[in-house]
Amino acid sequence: MSKKSIVLLSGGIDSTTTLYWAKHKGYSCFALIFDYHQKHKKEIKAAKKIASLSDTPFKIVKINLPQEGSSLLDENLEIPRKESRGIPSTYVPARNIIFLSMATSFAEVLNCKFIFFGANIIDYSGYPDCRPSFIKAFQRAINIGTKRGLKEKFVIKAPLLMMRKSEIIKLGSKLGVPFKYTWSCYRGEKKPCLICPSCRIRLKGFEEAGIKDPLLD
Amino acid sequence: MSKKSIVLLSGGIDSTTTLYWAKHKGYSCFALIFDYHQKHKKEIKAAKKIASLSDTPFKIVKINLPQEGSSLLDENLEIPRKESRGIPSTYVPARNIIFLSMATSFAEVLNCKFIFFGANIIDYSGYPDCRPSFIKAFQRAINIGTKRGLKEKFVIKAPLLMMRKSEIIKLGSKLGVPFKYTWSCYRGEKKPCLICPSCRIRLKGFEEAGIKDPLLD
Repeated sequence: MSKKSIVLLSGGIDSTTTLYWAKHKGYSCFALIFDYHQKHKKEIKAAKKIASLSDTPFKIVKINLPQEGSSLLDENLEIPRKESRGIPSTYVPARNIIFLSMATSFAEVLNCKFIFFGANIIDYSGYPDCRPSFIKAFQRAINIGTKRGLKEKFVIKAPLLMMRKSEIIKLGSKLGVPFKYTWSCYRGEKKPCLICPSCRIRLKGFEEAGIKDPLLD
Repeated sequence: MSKKSIVLLSGGIDSTTTLYWAKHKGYSCFALIFDYHQKHKKEIKAAKKIASLSDTPFKIVKINLPQEGSSLLDENLEIPRKESRGIPSTYVPARNIIFLSMATSFAEVLNCKFIFFGANIIDYSGYPDCRPSFIKAFQRAINIGTKRGLKEKFVIKAPLLMMRKSEIIKLGSKLGVPFKYTWSCYRGEKKPCLICPSCRIRLKGFEEAGIKDPLLD
């Protein structure tokens, strides 16, 4: 069976560990990196660096998302300083739906059966487009709505879905993930802010894993 | 009930008639026009003209689709001269899935319940992403995978789905669709080529409807 795959790569810990996991399991990977006018470009830079370190062919795909409605994109909204209840302001409307749709298009053209997606719901339980029921429903839709899906089904793989951040970090560590080059902070400054929810989850994850975050050297 | 909607507008007969139908039924419409590096820009120009004639706010959304695999995008593939059996070479992998995903994002940000989609399966039966079962499955996925969908369901409306081209042309004619400014030809020359499958379907549709195509004046 061909193990050709598309990997959604954002340059954070989850998507990078997903990429390394897929390679470790013998999948051949093509990475998609999205430029959707994030407030900063550090994560795109990180994703490119990781693709190059892991010898993964990649493409940077520009997407015009509406700029309103998410604190990750909208200059008028502030990135939160702590975790919120419910769906956080950093939610970008339909982002993963769009990313997975683009991945489907590339998967169809490049003849890939698998789409790897670094979603996990334990630490980020607020995002509806990371839920298992969404992934299943979306997979069903693309298998009905594409030429390839009518013959051979696509499979969306989210190997980290049920893992805690500390478990992901332990796994990544075992797989040789270059954490030093991953970027998690919602702000794009020289060093991670250590205040935003994404930094907090990362800090806690490394602490619980008993591993030192090389990014903080 | 709010009747705010997003309309996918390509500048062809189907999407334009869908827009006019929605307006006629009292929906307020925001049009999305996609620039996905089509071989020619005539349909984008047509869509802009129609949005302006119908006083519809719109946004042109650029999308990086893979350029290989479809004769509509790939310079190395020729646009067919006649209709094929099965899925035609003009199929663009996952195109409507991506368009509907982008529409979902805009619908969420602009607080729209409805997404209008000009798909029809009678004359274009080859495209898997126009099938009713796909539309239903996709609608289900976005209602699970978005913040808005968890509270109030999105509805994808494809009012022309089961209509023949001649019926669409009759309906459009009744609704005042400015056919003169719609563009169907897969080639982007000054006049429609009258040879490609899209031109042939249009010709046949006007003929069967007993209406003169003003574009051919």
